[in-house]
Amino acid sequence: MSTLTNRLYRLRSRPEGEVTAENLEWLEETVPELREGQALIRTHYLSVDPTNRVWMSAMRSYIPPVELDAVMRGAGVGQVVESRRDDLPVGSFVVGLTGWQDYCIADSASDDMSFTVLPDPLPAPLPAFVGVLGHTGISAYLGVEFAAPGPGETFFVSAAAGAVGSIAGQLAKRRGARVVGIAGGAEKCRYVVEEFGFDACIDRHSDDWKKQLDDATPDGIDIDFENVGGEIMDHVLSRLNFGARITLCGLVSEYNEYNGGSGPRGIRNVSQLLMQRASLRGFIVFDHVDRYGDIIGQLSQDLAGGVLHSDETVVDGLEQARQTLNRSLAGENKGKVVVKVVPS
Amino acid sequence: MSTLTNRLYRLRSRPEGEVTAENLEWLEETVPELREGQALIRTHYLSVDPTNRVWMSAMRSYIPPVELDAVMRGAGVGQVVESRRDDLPVGSFVVGLTGWQDYCIADSASDDMSFTVLPDPLPAPLPAFVGVLGHTGISAYLGVEFAAPGPGETFFVSAAAGAVGSIAGQLAKRRGARVVGIAGGAEKCRYVVEEFGFDACIDRHSDDWKKQLDDATPDGIDIDFENVGGEIMDHVLSRLNFGARITLCGLVSEYNEYNGGSGPRGIRNVSQLLMQRASLRGFIVFDHVDRYGDIIGQLSQDLAGGVLHSDETVVDGLEQARQTLNRSLAGENKGKVVVKVVPS
Repeated sequence: MSTLTNRLYRLRSRPEGEVTAENLEWLEETVPELREGQALIRTHYLSVDPTNRVWMSAMRSYIPPVELDAVMRGAGVGQVVESRRDDLPVGSFVVGLTGWQDYCIADSASDDMSFTVLPDPLPAPLPAFVGVLGHTGISAYLGVEFAAPGPGETFFVSAAAGAVGSIAGQLAKRRGARVVGIAGGAEKCRYVVEEFGFDACIDRHSDDWKKQLDDATPDGIDIDFENVGGEIMDHVLSRLNFGARITLCGLVSEYNEYNGGSGPRGIRNVSQLLMQRASLRGFIVFDHVDRYGDIIGQLSQDLAGGVLHSDETVVDGLEQARQTLNRSLAGENKGKVVVKVVPS
Repeated sequence: MSTLTNRLYRLRSRPEGEVTAENLEWLEETVPELREGQALIRTHYLSVDPTNRVWMSAMRSYIPPVELDAVMRGAGVGQVVESRRDDLPVGSFVVGLTGWQDYCIADSASDDMSFTVLPDPLPAPLPAFVGVLGHTGISAYLGVEFAAPGPGETFFVSAAAGAVGSIAGQLAKRRGARVVGIAGGAEKCRYVVEEFGFDACIDRHSDDWKKQLDDATPDGIDIDFENVGGEIMDHVLSRLNFGARITLCGLVSEYNEYNGGSGPRGIRNVSQLLMQRASLRGFIVFDHVDRYGDIIGQLSQDLAGGVLHSDETVVDGLEQARQTLNRSLAGENKGKVVVKVVPS
């Protein structure tokens, strides 16, 4: 197997703003011989998420930055193609941090190399395991659980057309809340309402998006499922009701700014958190690994029962991963974005 | 009694920045005849707090703004001097919203006119009932209870020399936390450490206050008892530990800006709330009236036992109230500030 070629990205420098080809070098290397306790995984689908941009930066975050010259970290789903590990038999499909590469060596001695073997037969198509049944779907589930929206409450979601937002809104809707989202562009907004059943979705590119948001939340906002931060979050804060809950899941509008440009914009309306006796909770899905099994089971059932819809945008080719991330950060993608790494 | 003169302030316009004599007019009026269900209260001490500035503004807050031309709202302690209400006997001392005036008519039909009769004999000097045993002390108690600091944790307090901060730090210290404060000026910092037993206090007027704050919190910050917001809060956020709690009690650095100038600065480091999985809770003491009795009992006991220290700055004369508030907002006062309304 030592003649296998591994196409991969190595992080050469930390991006300022967009991720350039200099920051993330595209290379071909030879896959080394497996040692005892290792398995070789062929990546099928790679998850591309705004949080990848955080991992490239040196900012103080929930996970150590990717080291310079290391293979770019990424979540993926793949198949074991060679193994010297009993827990990862050849042929099994697995999810874990495959990295941005064709092949990854899963070493039992490394914490980062913990993989979960998927059930056989697969309960859903492979891309779902890095989407609605992966970190983004589980994030949506947890965030909705923390905020506990109830009947008659107004649940607001930013980045509503995104991988997390689109699932979060559906879960809140099933709990009886009125669900209002915001997304970039009329087409995405139509998609959020028609595909995912939101009560309303505001186009953030409209000149009067603030007025539209006010009109769509006539009774104020009880829960903010926050994915973007910045100006949108600020306006949402001005609409909070007494005792509002904010689930802080992401701040995608600010990720590009931490290591270049003017720095993050932040929020001005902090006072409304006080005045409305709001509570806010930041959370990261990786802290809740012990819940994954149950949550994936629940979401699989909802998917199979047709009460939960997911939509993966599949981009063909690992060589598209960098630009796909840049497009996600610029708000140009919708739904869950995965890169198909294995050839058809 | 109809010949009694009432000196008072009426809110004529909403301040932009400092509160001017045009915003808050100083008048003399005649006290009207009491009707059935009313009592007349002579204000002895008036509490002057930064939050009074919020009440003067039209901002969306936790309490309706003071209406234009109405007597300025304020918490005070006074004595019933005439009564046509059975629950407020003549001679009893009471606390409640007396307003910024010599005499207030407590009408049983008005919600704002709910007064609590103090025990006889008084368990503490009168000014304490608008300070450590009043809204500010109870706020400190509740905020510390919500954040639940434990042994080995670092508890940070902004406006540490203030009415709330000085009590909050002492209560956290008794729970075993390392307590670090920030205050304006070397003299206030000395006072915070020597009078109130904080482990350290940073002078926010120092050029290198950020470095000093970092040095004083070598293990990071587990709890932020937030009273000021803005740049100080932002730097504190950069020091948060995993699972940190933020008790949002006040935002005094921003109150003067809401209705004039450049607007509130807000916070930039929102990302640290996410990255550190922090939780934040805004609270207002008035929501917890059902707890007042117990808390006042506990704080009285601590005061009597000498394990809790309070310090009231008494400013003589109701005619000083407006400028006293302006000085508090500018950070020129320390400890609890009360205005003595009744002549000695």
